[in-house]
Amino acid sequence: MDNPNSPHPPAHLLDQAPGAPIRSGIPEHGRIPKYYAVKARIADLIEELGDGQTLPTERDLAVRYEVARETVRQALRELLLEGRLRRQGRGTVVAGPKLEQPLSLASYTEGVRRQGRTPGRHLISLDRFPAPEALAAEIGVKQGEPVWHMERVLLADDERVGLESTYVSVARVPALDREFEPDSSFYAYLRDRLGISFGDADERIETVLATPREALLIGTPPALPMLLIHRVSRDTSGHPLERVRTLYRGDRFSFTTHLGNGGT
Amino acid sequence: MDNPNSPHPPAHLLDQAPGAPIRSGIPEHGRIPKYYAVKARIADLIEELGDGQTLPTERDLAVRYEVARETVRQALRELLLEGRLRRQGRGTVVAGPKLEQPLSLASYTEGVRRQGRTPGRHLISLDRFPAPEALAAEIGVKQGEPVWHMERVLLADDERVGLESTYVSVARVPALDREFEPDSSFYAYLRDRLGISFGDADERIETVLATPREALLIGTPPALPMLLIHRVSRDTSGHPLERVRTLYRGDRFSFTTHLGNGGT
Repeated sequence: MDNPNSPHPPAHLLDQAPGAPIRSGIPEHGRIPKYYAVKARIADLIEELGDGQTLPTERDLAVRYEVARETVRQALRELLLEGRLRRQGRGTVVAGPKLEQPLSLASYTEGVRRQGRTPGRHLISLDRFPAPEALAAEIGVKQGEPVWHMERVLLADDERVGLESTYVSVARVPALDREFEPDSSFYAYLRDRLGISFGDADERIETVLATPREALLIGTPPALPMLLIHRVSRDTSGHPLERVRTLYRGDRFSFTTHLGNGGT
Repeated sequence: MDNPNSPHPPAHLLDQAPGAPIRSGIPEHGRIPKYYAVKARIADLIEELGDGQTLPTERDLAVRYEVARETVRQALRELLLEGRLRRQGRGTVVAGPKLEQPLSLASYTEGVRRQGRTPGRHLISLDRFPAPEALAAEIGVKQGEPVWHMERVLLADDERVGLESTYVSVARVPALDREFEPDSSFYAYLRDRLGISFGDADERIETVLATPREALLIGTPPALPMLLIHRVSRDTSGHPLERVRTLYRGDRFSFTTHLGNGGT
């Protein structure tokens, strides 16, 4: 039995410790891939170093662990995809923890502010088109009625962290293209200028790979796993309001929720 | 302007259609990677074919699209990771939609049943160890007190879809190793045998890459993006009860939630 007062928990617990899924990688049966053994050692090094510290170069790591540089590169690639490391200039530094965004009706803006980061948005496109059938039902218009599509990159402290597409009826928000400041909160605009408040929403979360276009807009490595949230929301009278598709960098975000017994 | 009665919605809407993020991949600036153009065409083919239909072979696709087999392979790899295709025997078939699991206090078992699938669990390991500090606080025991760790593979219709680690106090569930049938619902056991009901829980969702061990246990390709849910739950008296770490195949699962105005 391990000593319960030891500062080091037993290995099989460490395996499952939150934030350290990498350690659970050693197969009980079968061979350990070489790159993976290197990854586990670099992960230990990351913990020793701490947030913001610079990692030794690929070459130094290859010498230290007595492996080929390509092996180190594969280990680093996964640690970058997982958000444990990030590129900074020419170096690689230890990344801070993921942002924890509550799943709630509050906007992205509020969620990011609550964590002491500065939210921002950067407009990619704003256009209108006739609603196809499925979208029309979701946002409460007739098929063919005009719909806004607004696409914005999400920022946290000037870092690009996501991409959001909002669909809303033109009849409902007629002056969106003239009145709305696209780097501000759309929800604050609806509330303060149009007196529209959110009542409830349905959300669906999944993980997808970034497409080349998305990777380009968000500035991520290609094929980075992303968290995709689909939202359909209604106002306080229960009328459909908007449909939103938001893509968050999987290496930068996690989402939290509180479940009560009222849940279904 | 597109004809609103056309069965084909405008291209920029299709780009953002739910379940079709792949189509949003064509960069407006910059070159389209060749494999990506092929991927978009195979995605169209997938829609034409429909669930369960067999895709032409790699060789046939390479001939059809006049590209190298490696280019087709890269496109297929992403479509497999995204869960749009799945391997069946020696062939590749069109995958059905992802399972939609509600984020709720209900168990995995109930969530899967609600979708008409048969849930199952397969025990990997059950052991006990003294609780390290952080875990002790989460499950309501003193540091060093004994804790169960139960690891199970999750099944849906006999397909392996996830991996779950449950940590619970031995004092609370003393006969877990003798009484509990590991392929049944742990929540039903707590309720029916011990009279323990869930009151509330905090959850955190993120995306991670499968480790080699996890990929081996779940039977997924290496480095498949997974959805990881951390749960800390309490009983109806508010006492800490369990800590759970569940990994779901990112190509098979999405999670849904309803947000009301009471949300934070």
